[in-house]
Amino acid sequence: METPAQKVTAKRPRVLIIGGGFAGLNAAKELSSLPVDVTLIDRKNHHTFQPLLYQVATATLSPGNIAQPIRRILSHCANVKVLMDELTAVDLSAKKAQFKNLGAVDFDYFILATGARHSYFGNDQWEKFAPGLKTIEDAVEIRSRILSAFEVAETEMAKTGTHKPLNFVIIGGGPTGVEMAGAISDICRMSMRGDYRLIDPAKARIILIEGLPRILGPYPEDLAASAVLQLQELGVEVMLSARVTDVQSDAVVTDKGVVPASVIMWAAGVQASSAGKMLNVECDRRGCVLVDDFLNPPGQPDVFVCGDVAHFEQDGKPVPGVAPCAMQMGEQAARAIACDLAGKARTKFRYDDKGDMATIGRRRAVANLKWPVKTHMSGFLAWLSWLLIHILSLIGLRNRLAVFFAWIWTYLRSESGVRLITDDVAEHPTPLAVTKDGPHLETKV
Amino acid sequence: METPAQKVTAKRPRVLIIGGGFAGLNAAKELSSLPVDVTLIDRKNHHTFQPLLYQVATATLSPGNIAQPIRRILSHCANVKVLMDELTAVDLSAKKAQFKNLGAVDFDYFILATGARHSYFGNDQWEKFAPGLKTIEDAVEIRSRILSAFEVAETEMAKTGTHKPLNFVIIGGGPTGVEMAGAISDICRMSMRGDYRLIDPAKARIILIEGLPRILGPYPEDLAASAVLQLQELGVEVMLSARVTDVQSDAVVTDKGVVPASVIMWAAGVQASSAGKMLNVECDRRGCVLVDDFLNPPGQPDVFVCGDVAHFEQDGKPVPGVAPCAMQMGEQAARAIACDLAGKARTKFRYDDKGDMATIGRRRAVANLKWPVKTHMSGFLAWLSWLLIHILSLIGLRNRLAVFFAWIWTYLRSESGVRLITDDVAEHPTPLAVTKDGPHLETKV
Repeated sequence: METPAQKVTAKRPRVLIIGGGFAGLNAAKELSSLPVDVTLIDRKNHHTFQPLLYQVATATLSPGNIAQPIRRILSHCANVKVLMDELTAVDLSAKKAQFKNLGAVDFDYFILATGARHSYFGNDQWEKFAPGLKTIEDAVEIRSRILSAFEVAETEMAKTGTHKPLNFVIIGGGPTGVEMAGAISDICRMSMRGDYRLIDPAKARIILIEGLPRILGPYPEDLAASAVLQLQELGVEVMLSARVTDVQSDAVVTDKGVVPASVIMWAAGVQASSAGKMLNVECDRRGCVLVDDFLNPPGQPDVFVCGDVAHFEQDGKPVPGVAPCAMQMGEQAARAIACDLAGKARTKFRYDDKGDMATIGRRRAVANLKWPVKTHMSGFLAWLSWLLIHILSLIGLRNRLAVFFAWIWTYLRSESGVRLITDDVAEHPTPLAVTKDGPHLETKV
Repeated sequence: METPAQKVTAKRPRVLIIGGGFAGLNAAKELSSLPVDVTLIDRKNHHTFQPLLYQVATATLSPGNIAQPIRRILSHCANVKVLMDELTAVDLSAKKAQFKNLGAVDFDYFILATGARHSYFGNDQWEKFAPGLKTIEDAVEIRSRILSAFEVAETEMAKTGTHKPLNFVIIGGGPTGVEMAGAISDICRMSMRGDYRLIDPAKARIILIEGLPRILGPYPEDLAASAVLQLQELGVEVMLSARVTDVQSDAVVTDKGVVPASVIMWAAGVQASSAGKMLNVECDRRGCVLVDDFLNPPGQPDVFVCGDVAHFEQDGKPVPGVAPCAMQMGEQAARAIACDLAGKARTKFRYDDKGDMATIGRRRAVANLKWPVKTHMSGFLAWLSWLLIHILSLIGLRNRLAVFFAWIWTYLRSESGVRLITDDVAEHPTPLAVTKDGPHLETKV
């Protein structure tokens, strides 16, 4: 029995969206009012609110606070199907995409929005020592490493009466690196104090290594300088113009010397997801697909590339890899399809940049606002603006309330709420394990 | 520079507690007012509120809601040190315990409170198909399996127009099995509806398999019968007197027939943690240490065994492996040490049983109260009592508020808050993958 609705369906253009990040979600939402059949496919079942991932990695928020099932977010979009699968190949001329489980899927329009991963600039062997921060799994792994470092130091102290210095090293002075450094300082100086009997977490060193002569590249000079001062107030050591030449299990080697490290985090570079290359069109050296003013690869009007996997230039330089830009690109792709359906000419994409902001610990931030007024802000006021904007940007009332509650609590009580190490200690050889075969020392427990 | 306090310290009895569960934590808290030096060692950095683990496994609560760092919980106990390490051996005559990282640790008193794990009755090969529910990691794994089953069915439906039946099979009709069955029914009938375009989650079968002729063994007959009715109202099929003879990746074999299964959960039996055997004293067949009226193994007055790893008989039968009993045992061990210090005779342990309760889905429960009044309760009122008692039992105001908020939300919105699959789909071969080499079918996306 075919309903009339299903008969119509058969002739509706099929739009295939790959990726449930900011770009893919916004494309799907925008397409939900059009007479099209949308299928959104992602490797994960959830959308991750990446701007707050560092707060999961530093034990302030739970993964569930910043992640939501994609199909839940789109449950009110009746013409959108959501599937969990992995893209393996794309044939643009045949208009077919190949997936691991689904097999071949036909489409009329294709929207690629698969985002980016970290780039180790050809040194992928560094990843195991210096994980990056792009997924919930990354964040939980980094959280375990940070918390384990304190546990190892306390155990070492109990065993030998001394412990190796606690050094947290963040490679990369962009917004993520700055936010991580500030948050780790808060953990050491506030949340952890009083919980250890033998070590003093406040004595941990936090070192932010940046290869360029300044941090926060995309921000104006004055804000970058302010950020350095604010970081230093939190006890963070900022190493500028230090080129990393090697990353080892317990040290970062730079051209300015070796930095011993208990935990290393990578926030230095990103590359496009490998799906970009599957299109067989021109990509930049980071694997981002070069797109024209309409977000299409040249000569491919039915293919849109949006978000971090796209290389779109505006005013002579690529647009930044930030959430608002990805969201606007997703909406643009959907609007172009709407124009096609209405028989109207498509419009060119233009990124409407309202500014950037980055927090530095629990009451500081820098903000480069371009809307509603063009201004630079630093310190507490910038931090309050950051809080407000991020609460409002979160998807779903429940997560907004839960994050608001977590922040109020963290701020008032100087406590981190989610300090869980969720791997067996037995499975992670700790630095202490190395000393096991060394001289036997009387344990001073 | 030695302070006077430290000088005194040198002569204070050293109490070594293994395990930060209900028993270990309560022993440590009770010991915090005594002139002793306490060291609590656990493999994990966090205490887990096990009675609510099934709500993490069924996506209602976040791991952080029911787990807290042990050292945080005990941060106000100045004479308690917390370390994260793994016990490898105990020498009771030399009063030394051996740890993986710490090496040998001397003690004057030893409190073993390492709890229990699932038992597969000699069929450990079943574990990978039918995980049990004892840790946060277990819960997250089961959550991923349940949610993935729906995703696989939706993908299968998109590919072939049909899907294998969704069967959730829970082995073991004790309180955990009953609570899991009810919660999965809620997910299928409420939280998931409206989120899938192709499958109907409400058509999933939920099958509870119990080897005995009745469920909820420790509860009175009338409550067990009521629980069966309440489960059936939720669409759960209860198979009684069905002995499991084999567990496979996609089926449970019983002497009453083969039950096909998408996801299998094990709630059938527990055995003591392996630490029990390290004492070289008499254990029962589940590995629980036989203890006397004072919670000591015979002839070992300085060794206490508390919680699920202890076999303590009262009125001719072993006390149940529940949180209140573990807490009382932990306190008892501490009080025995207090008696020693005061030169008083120790008192015998007696479990003060206030009753048991188990929820069945979102608004039902059974309660066998023994205090403040002896009564049997079923249905909504029992459920309200269950809510109240569990909120009040949670550790920490923050978790109480967060769980309260999550429950209000879940109840009012019929939504599960934490539906995250946190493993790559690529890493888990799904049943769909099996069909990959079969005949090629046109994908109906």
